[in-house]
Amino acid sequence: MAGAARLFRRASRGPPALAFARALGSAPPEPAGRGEWRTALAAAGALGGLALGLWRRQAALSAARDDEEEKELRQRFMAPPVSGLRELRRRRRELRSRMELLIMETQAEVCRALADLDPGASFAVDTWERKEGGGGISCVLQDGEVFEKAGVNVSVVSGLLSEEAARQMRSRGKSLKAKDGKLPFCAMGVSSVIHPKNPHVPTMHFNYRYFEIEEADGTKQWWFGGGTDLTPTYLNEEDAIHFHKTLKEACDKHDVKLYPKYKKWCDDYFYIKHRGERRGIGGIFFDDMDSPSKEEVFQFVKSCAKAVVPCYIPIVKKHCHDSFTPEEKLWQQLRRGRYVEFNLVYDRGTKFGLLTPGSRIESILMSLPLTARWEYMHNPPENSKEAEILEVLRNPKDWVH
Amino acid sequence: MAGAARLFRRASRGPPALAFARALGSAPPEPAGRGEWRTALAAAGALGGLALGLWRRQAALSAARDDEEEKELRQRFMAPPVSGLRELRRRRRELRSRMELLIMETQAEVCRALADLDPGASFAVDTWERKEGGGGISCVLQDGEVFEKAGVNVSVVSGLLSEEAARQMRSRGKSLKAKDGKLPFCAMGVSSVIHPKNPHVPTMHFNYRYFEIEEADGTKQWWFGGGTDLTPTYLNEEDAIHFHKTLKEACDKHDVKLYPKYKKWCDDYFYIKHRGERRGIGGIFFDDMDSPSKEEVFQFVKSCAKAVVPCYIPIVKKHCHDSFTPEEKLWQQLRRGRYVEFNLVYDRGTKFGLLTPGSRIESILMSLPLTARWEYMHNPPENSKEAEILEVLRNPKDWVH
Repeated sequence: MAGAARLFRRASRGPPALAFARALGSAPPEPAGRGEWRTALAAAGALGGLALGLWRRQAALSAARDDEEEKELRQRFMAPPVSGLRELRRRRRELRSRMELLIMETQAEVCRALADLDPGASFAVDTWERKEGGGGISCVLQDGEVFEKAGVNVSVVSGLLSEEAARQMRSRGKSLKAKDGKLPFCAMGVSSVIHPKNPHVPTMHFNYRYFEIEEADGTKQWWFGGGTDLTPTYLNEEDAIHFHKTLKEACDKHDVKLYPKYKKWCDDYFYIKHRGERRGIGGIFFDDMDSPSKEEVFQFVKSCAKAVVPCYIPIVKKHCHDSFTPEEKLWQQLRRGRYVEFNLVYDRGTKFGLLTPGSRIESILMSLPLTARWEYMHNPPENSKEAEILEVLRNPKDWVH
Repeated sequence: MAGAARLFRRASRGPPALAFARALGSAPPEPAGRGEWRTALAAAGALGGLALGLWRRQAALSAARDDEEEKELRQRFMAPPVSGLRELRRRRRELRSRMELLIMETQAEVCRALADLDPGASFAVDTWERKEGGGGISCVLQDGEVFEKAGVNVSVVSGLLSEEAARQMRSRGKSLKAKDGKLPFCAMGVSSVIHPKNPHVPTMHFNYRYFEIEEADGTKQWWFGGGTDLTPTYLNEEDAIHFHKTLKEACDKHDVKLYPKYKKWCDDYFYIKHRGERRGIGGIFFDDMDSPSKEEVFQFVKSCAKAVVPCYIPIVKKHCHDSFTPEEKLWQQLRRGRYVEFNLVYDRGTKFGLLTPGSRIESILMSLPLTARWEYMHNPPENSKEAEILEVLRNPKDWVH
């Protein structure tokens, strides 16, 4: 297991400790805050020895507590949670707190598993704030030995739903009764795309998210969405079966009807219509999940999130040292082109992000591969390995029955 | 000047002569036609010597005329026009015929100029038909010495306007009165994107098109659209001035108000909103142009089309042997990534094409570069050559005053 410390390489965002403290809400704002802090010190001095001693002891206690907290944060997460650890502890029973901890843990778990496989590379960790409310943590490993580009992003945002977002949600059948045209919302999720270098290691994507909207009468609408799917350059049936089986097992613990339903949804969603091809060999995908109960859906989402590492990492380990030809690399690059086509033309999340003011473009587009290729009229010969995967992308298969 | 014959490399579409004859409407269809042709021969034989002699003479004359025509076609165009040369001659006074000849000539002129600069490479020429009416000719040079990917596409399509297309046009302010919900239309255009290998040679795009729609009362609505724009990897002020000046001169011959108006339209249109950048340093762009008169607009479009070679080719000649560093190549690849973002997320033509049933995807997406790159959080250092071009993409400049 890679040490957590090695995973941290903060990309030109000022000293890590400050960013930590700021995200925790425990540090004074810069630069005005520093001035206030000095004034407080001077005032304490003026009150004489006793007051100053008291202040010093409190400051020492607080520093020790901060050290403890920072240690815990570094061990558990890639960066401090957007809502702050103390706030999450205070409202620990609320589902949104438990979900925020789950997405933070998933981010750390996946990043560590990837870093373990690519010892020469490290994740750049960026914490960012959203002017309109909330923020996020983007972890990106780029140009490693094993991974061409691996991004794992957490975002926790809140505020008032934009007109466009409300319109889109209503078109999906939601009745959102706004008060004075306003709909307070809270949305959080973890999303990730892993593009490996070796064409025999597939690309993997996952995303788990939670949404809450407060209506005019104070009632809250909520739902979960997400999924995990695989995009191989070449078909390896054993890997496809392992991937789908692991996801099926995660689903079956909750309801045996879920895997078949969400497997089909995945094949339908990741469809590049103008090519008549799926983006990959699928997995599971679901949205607007709000039954049987909040607790049960959360437990299901947790099972799915916990399945990410076991469904993917063994495949990476198995193939990351496979030899490959320049022709295989070229085919991988052409398939990367298709990945870009899907993400920029069809993916709802990407489109929504690009059109939403205040969204962090670099975090949205970190799903794009490091490199991609488009050749005019490229058609693989019949009975080739390239034609084999195309056939599966055109006619999805059932991998587990 | 490169010989026309060398330009032809038909990409696995059967023998060129047959494709020529088929497009001209002068050859019998395959394979049933061949049988009919043999039957006719037998019938002629049965009628005796005179009839057979007459038929032979006519066949010889017709063959000679076909040879002449094919020779002319090969000299003037990349492939036979979609509407057929005879049909174009028959209705030579109609604007749609003159426009079809103009786009065919522009295609050939540009392809020859490019082939001249890249003697080792040749254009693949594909003629294609659209089931719903019309067809096109795609010429693509790929992986040459000078050009990474250069596509010049002609399409001439007709039929009934789709509901979606009519809706889009009405949203642009057109009142289209349909008869029984039907709107017969005819659309034609030449479009091209040239991606050179050397990062010191800019990418160029142009497109000139004509649209005709017949309304319920038989009146025809018509308009022209188009433009030419440049996307350099690095800024070269001399080139930018030459490019814009050449376009301005073409516009000024018709109306001095045109260049400033269409230069601004171009900067506004090729805007990658989520990046806050233009795709390139602009040029001209216009749409829905239907005044002062059909003839005058056609003459303006002709001037613009004739300006493509003089505004671009000298820049290619000047820089195609410039030396460059791996870092410059990398920056070019990142800019190619932005090109893909614009084309897939914003470009009206691409989006419309991808969503239109029956459109030829390979011709629409030939605008994408051979290779592209996306790096997370790539920010060029201040005062670098990379920052210099970004500044111009963020704040367009006036190049000719």
